[in-house]
Amino acid sequence: MQKISPIQIEWRPEKNGHTPVYKQIVQFVCDKVAAGEWTVGTKLPSQRALAELFEVNRSTITTAIDELTSYGIVSGRHGAGTQISSNTWSLFLPKSNWNEYLKSGSFQENNVMIQAINRLEFEPSVIRIGTGEIDPRLFSQSMWSKTLQKVGSKLTSLGYLENLGLLELRQAIAKHLEDSGIRADPENILITSGSLQALQLIAVCLLQKGSTVFTEAPSYLKSLQMFQSAGMNLKGIPMDENGIEYWKLSSGETVDSSVLYTIPTNQNPTGTTMSENRRQELMKYCIDNQLPIIEDGAYQELSYNGVISKTLKSMDENGMVIYLGTASKTLAPGLRIGWVVASKPIVERLGDVKMQMDYGASSLSQWALTEFLNSGAYDEYLSDLKIELKNRRDNALKSLEKYFKDLASWNKPDGGFYIWLTFKNNIRIEQLFDAAIKEKILLNPGDIYDFKEDHSLRLSFAYVNSDEFNRAIRELSEIIKELN
Amino acid sequence: MQKISPIQIEWRPEKNGHTPVYKQIVQFVCDKVAAGEWTVGTKLPSQRALAELFEVNRSTITTAIDELTSYGIVSGRHGAGTQISSNTWSLFLPKSNWNEYLKSGSFQENNVMIQAINRLEFEPSVIRIGTGEIDPRLFSQSMWSKTLQKVGSKLTSLGYLENLGLLELRQAIAKHLEDSGIRADPENILITSGSLQALQLIAVCLLQKGSTVFTEAPSYLKSLQMFQSAGMNLKGIPMDENGIEYWKLSSGETVDSSVLYTIPTNQNPTGTTMSENRRQELMKYCIDNQLPIIEDGAYQELSYNGVISKTLKSMDENGMVIYLGTASKTLAPGLRIGWVVASKPIVERLGDVKMQMDYGASSLSQWALTEFLNSGAYDEYLSDLKIELKNRRDNALKSLEKYFKDLASWNKPDGGFYIWLTFKNNIRIEQLFDAAIKEKILLNPGDIYDFKEDHSLRLSFAYVNSDEFNRAIRELSEIIKELN
Repeated sequence: MQKISPIQIEWRPEKNGHTPVYKQIVQFVCDKVAAGEWTVGTKLPSQRALAELFEVNRSTITTAIDELTSYGIVSGRHGAGTQISSNTWSLFLPKSNWNEYLKSGSFQENNVMIQAINRLEFEPSVIRIGTGEIDPRLFSQSMWSKTLQKVGSKLTSLGYLENLGLLELRQAIAKHLEDSGIRADPENILITSGSLQALQLIAVCLLQKGSTVFTEAPSYLKSLQMFQSAGMNLKGIPMDENGIEYWKLSSGETVDSSVLYTIPTNQNPTGTTMSENRRQELMKYCIDNQLPIIEDGAYQELSYNGVISKTLKSMDENGMVIYLGTASKTLAPGLRIGWVVASKPIVERLGDVKMQMDYGASSLSQWALTEFLNSGAYDEYLSDLKIELKNRRDNALKSLEKYFKDLASWNKPDGGFYIWLTFKNNIRIEQLFDAAIKEKILLNPGDIYDFKEDHSLRLSFAYVNSDEFNRAIRELSEIIKELN
Repeated sequence: MQKISPIQIEWRPEKNGHTPVYKQIVQFVCDKVAAGEWTVGTKLPSQRALAELFEVNRSTITTAIDELTSYGIVSGRHGAGTQISSNTWSLFLPKSNWNEYLKSGSFQENNVMIQAINRLEFEPSVIRIGTGEIDPRLFSQSMWSKTLQKVGSKLTSLGYLENLGLLELRQAIAKHLEDSGIRADPENILITSGSLQALQLIAVCLLQKGSTVFTEAPSYLKSLQMFQSAGMNLKGIPMDENGIEYWKLSSGETVDSSVLYTIPTNQNPTGTTMSENRRQELMKYCIDNQLPIIEDGAYQELSYNGVISKTLKSMDENGMVIYLGTASKTLAPGLRIGWVVASKPIVERLGDVKMQMDYGASSLSQWALTEFLNSGAYDEYLSDLKIELKNRRDNALKSLEKYFKDLASWNKPDGGFYIWLTFKNNIRIEQLFDAAIKEKILLNPGDIYDFKEDHSLRLSFAYVNSDEFNRAIRELSEIIKELN
């Protein structure tokens, strides 16, 4: 490292220039860093000294330093003064976009909420009763150990794969999809790095800027920036207990190149499963109105009442439906494996662009999932998982009956992870969130998923066991009574 | 499936309209498909019947059917007539962009060449003497089996990971980077799905449309559409035997927000390693001219002459350098694991956007690489691999000396995979490519990597063994003599 000597500043801002003085100071510091004159670790004079030197108010210096801090160019440790913390590349961070990026999304509040949730999820002592992920304690160590051992003994190489992904996996998925009534050849299947990437590819390859993506209100999709970032508009359509009220779409809103995104089975976040009648009506409506469908089947295999819902894709004769599947909600999110089922030109187009993005998903993950599916280990594991989750759901519903009867209403999901709970009183959700976190309970407020401010929570019985759920629900009921 | 009856067509094109007749026919078919009237499998009347029905020339029908075929809407099996092969979603394939996309890249020829190479790589009997991938036969079955068994026995969950990737892997990489003189904390490292995604993230997050990316001429970067797709200009700067001739940058071209992409060690495709003097001069030049650097260290660990080159990143005091590493060129491309080393605000920004794209790289791959690095298996494997590749390189140089002395000149690489061979005569590379493929030899022509048409080949001694290389080189020399 270079030896760092106190810096000399000869420059002075121009007081009567067009550019505000604080901006001149920001630019001056950026130039020094970009030129390599001020390297990482260089200490700036104190804010008071700078104010004197530049003959400006202390507040002007503070504003400049705040902006530089937000760019990552300087950082100030308490008591240790301000120093250069970063460098030339930091100057490339798109300044206006960067701020926009931090502010992106619909409501400022939501984003703050999601950020808080993401941060708090790493606190080990917190009880997470809204998390959309299977309890890590249900991870089957022995099954994984056995499967990886088998994969290890069979692997003969781990090279680049063809555009659509590992053929053996696509064959296994094609077979597996038959259980959902979907007939697909391996050439109709594209392996993606999770469903999120599938949505990303659809946004980039198939949708146009300014087009509308319709979805259930509330919807998981609302919590993503995916389509909005790509320039599409997201519109929520109300649901009843049978699913999306598609007829509410018809008020002149259906425009060219709009699409419908739906989670018909065990929807996220409401747990609603679309009735078979509604599915048939919806398909007819979409054909009549030339509205193609993205069907997210993430929770398709997680029904606990013995009924397997007919996928929209299985009813699809016109190629209206792109079907998305994933291993994240049943097996493990860390595999990062999802799949798109569509016609050949569509999957090839998406696959070509995927290759330009990351050369395909992990081959190791793809071999592991192939082994799970072909060996029967997946089916065995899934049937155990469903028994456990069914018990957790039954317990959760009992627990709500006991503690929330007078406070809220909720649905009784046939499967999946979620219960959508709506308070009878207009409770302030931020206040509840804060009060709950003090008691180490992490909530997923409904606002994250809904298109309007509401008084709901997404509860999940997948991440916590029954005891934890009961304890959290009891405490939550007490918090609410205090807040009312 | 619906029963398919012969279709009745009442519609007729408008002969004197503004829209060409063939376009009207295309639109008519698209509308029928979009409306769900013509489902997949529907057979169209024969081209002759259509020509009579619409009262147009047979060639007009052919043009329309060709366009519909290119969109994937119809397909024609020989003798079986034309039928609807796809559907509503296919209509979303951006028609103009789709064509542009197929034509994208610099030269039409290059793309045809790359497409041919990608296709021919799946022919098992072809000898690939240009492929930038380690011979799958060098895959260490026992090492992988042992490692996966260990991973299986240690894994306790496979949930979503934090933005930057698995902490244990970032710690292992930070330690591993010390060998390249790079001091980084885990918080300076972002795990990506291979280096390609790292470049994608840099293009999307840090660079601006219209800015210039300088790179060696020739360069691997030229074979990617990455930066051009994101709106940047790619400019090639000549090299001598010591690396990039940076001083040729200075002719007024260096503009705001341009960057330099370089592979200083065992460059792809030339095999050149930048001298230490050149590295120091380049760093000084870049600081003086505020030109930040993307250093691709893909072949950094693959030097065979006992000398470890100093990375630019290790000489970097100003944060000029973003360093890219990958497991693809040493261990296995199928892991899809790369890493970015940069300052905290940079990796955080890239990591945030990565989370919006695919929620992170495969945890299974990340755990596997962690195990390889921490157990010492990686270092052991790497030292064996280097001995094997050194032998292959020595053999390749001998073989060239024997068969190509009078036909071409080439460099003697210190490491990596590649030898850059330039013909003395102005041989027509397409012709050579075609003649070679007839003899089952697959070449990577220099045009793919260079900024001008040239008479070079990228040879790789990594994918084929010495016998195969010798045989291919001997045959190639004979082909050339016949062509001359």
